[in-house]
Order: sequence, then C-alpha cells, then structure tokens
Amino acid sequence: MTVNAPTAHLNGVDRATLFATLDAVKAQPEIAKFQFRASNTWMSGTHSRSSFAGFFGATQEMEHRHVTVVDADHPVVLVGQDHAPTPVEYLLHAIAACMTAGLVNVASARRVPLRSVTSTVEGDIDLLGILGLGADEVRNGYQTIRVHFDIDADADETTVRELLEQSRRRSAVYDVLTNGTRVDIDVAVTAS
Amino acid sequence: MTVNAPTAHLNGVDRATLFATLDAVKAQPEIAKFQFRASNTWMSGTHSRSSFAGFFGATQEMEHRHVTVVDADHPVVLVGQDHAPTPVEYLLHAIAACMTAGLVNVASARRVPLRSVTSTVEGDIDLLGILGLGADEVRNGYQTIRVHFDIDADADETTVRELLEQSRRRSAVYDVLTNGTRVDIDVAVTAS
Repeated sequence: MTVNAPTAHLNGVDRATLFATLDAVKAQPEIAKFQFRASNTWMSGTHSRSSFAGFFGATQEMEHRHVTVVDADHPVVLVGQDHAPTPVEYLLHAIAACMTAGLVNVASARRVPLRSVTSTVEGDIDLLGILGLGADEVRNGYQTIRVHFDIDADADETTVRELLEQSRRRSAVYDVLTNGTRVDIDVAVTAS
Repeated sequence: MTVNAPTAHLNGVDRATLFATLDAVKAQPEIAKFQFRASNTWMSGTHSRSSFAGFFGATQEMEHRHVTVVDADHPVVLVGQDHAPTPVEYLLHAIAACMTAGLVNVASARRVPLRSVTSTVEGDIDLLGILGLGADEVRNGYQTIRVHFDIDADADETTVRELLEQSRRRSAVYDVLTNGTRVDIDVAVTAS
C-alpha cells in the first residue's frame, strides 16, 4: 500500500517535501533566515542590468541552478530607449508571482487540484511625483496596485477564495508592498 | 554656434529631450498619469511567468518596443524547481534599476559625466513569517534591504552623493518599498 501516492505530487508540488521542510524549520528555526541578492550594472541612459546568482539560506551560501539576467529601462516617452520593462513593472511581476506560488503551495497542502491560475496586475502612477513637478501630495510611487486572478480549480468557489486569502496573508511581496520595509543606501565614490 | 552640442547627449541621455519632456508635463500635467501592467501565468508548482507588453501613458495606450517575459520560482531548498529567481529577488532588481536610472537622469541634467555605476542589493528575510511558523513579530517580507552603490564619475564626491540622494528622493520604487502602497486583490473562480 502506497499511502501517499495519489497526492504525493499535486499541482507540481512535492507535498512530502513541503511538509518535511516545514518540520525541518520547526525543529531548527535558524534555517529559515535567508538573504537574497541582486547585482546591477548601468548600461547607458536609463538602461541597467541585474543578475541573480547566489543567496544565503538554510545556514549556508547557496547558488541558483542558473544565473538569471534581467534588464530595466524607461520607455521612449520617458526619455529611455525601451530596452526592457521599467523598474516599477517588476514590482507587478513580483506580487503576481509571489501570490501565485503561495496559492499553489496552499492548494497543494490542502489537496486542492488547480487547473489554471492567471493574473493581471495594474499599477497607477502619476509621474508628476518622480519628475518633481507635483504638489506635495503627489507621491513618487504607485498610488494603487490592483491584482486580478482567474483561477480554475477542482473545488468550490469558497475554498478557492480561502486559498487566495491564505496566500495573501503569507505573501512576502504583499507584505513589503503594502507595509513597506527599511531600505538602507550607501555609496562608494570614485571621483576624478 | 551650437550651444547645446557638447552636452546634448550625456551618459546616454538626450538632455534636450529630457528638458522638453519636463516642459511638456508642466504644460499638460495629465500626460504624467501612467498605468503599468504585467500578466502572469502559473506554469507548475511555484513556477510562474509574467509578460510586459502594453502600458498607458501620455493620454494613450502604448506598447513596449519588445514584449519581455520573465519567470519566477522558488529554489529547491524552498520546495521549488529553481527555474528562475524568487519573486522577492525582483524587488531587489527594481530598487537598483530605479535608483540607477534616476541617478543617471539627474547626473545628465546637472552635466555630470558618469563612468560607471554598479550596485549590489541584499534583502534579509526570515521565512518563519511566510511559513506561518513565527511569532507574531516575524513579518512575511524583508526585514531590511541594503543597497550599496559604486559610482565612478567625473565630479567630486559631494556632488556624486547629492546625485544619489536626489535619485532616492524621486525614486518610485524607493517610495513603494519604504512607504508601502495600496494593493487590491480580486478573483474570478471557475470551480468544478
């Protein structure tokens, strides 16, 4: 008898590993301390490029399976060359991806099969803020971000809504975007 | 006499276009209202994919020159397949890219030639929060983000520090990450 077989993997999540990971963290909470990193290089104008390689977690230095490189730029209408999305658009990707990953994990833990999850994110921003042309009440960042999910699941609507709500409650990106976090900046200058 | 020639372009920024854009916004502030967007699709497990295509700005629908596609996943140690960086790592890219673009624009406006700008960003996060295993004081998101810039410029150190400080004051991503913003979530469920 293979008790776990029917739901050992669900929605692409290895449930046994998921629960084993939770147990490991309960037994040794310091393995939950992570540090993520990005390195960015200015290309030209408003165009820059970041790479993600290593991070710290589970008490050790770790490497991603692949180094990922992503660019950012401003669109032409904002005096850039539009080589890539704007920095603020990556915030929209981050919230969609974080809540989707959380939703899938929660669904898998609760044995809810998902068929599809898509989302669209919109962020409203008045550039009078960053251009320094607005009154004091015009902020630099997004005024509002809206996330719309379309979820097809083998469960009733109330169950699916609860999955999404639990994902929101445990989302790292949702927390940072709604509550803010401390950002320290320092600089080493080579001037000549 | 071509007055603007020596500094018409500086650091890859078309200064004439930069100032013309500022003038245009002063004359017609409603062109500064933008909406950025991302569309995300769940792939499997914690892996999802976003695309950036269109946005609204300058009173009209606009398209990026290229559609950009980026993925996110969890690392293997966090029960993912590590197809891509985590959602929270994209926040680090966003702050580095936003402050770099702002720095370059401010430097160009002030006629400061830049030689190189690189930055490294670190974000500390205790995953007890998102795992639901922490006490109430363990937040889901980053506890602190640190951005370190290395800037080589044809200017004295005080001038360069002021450029970076002005970039911080006008950064959309810095504002969102430090002050937070409203995030509304809704869902359409296909349940069966």
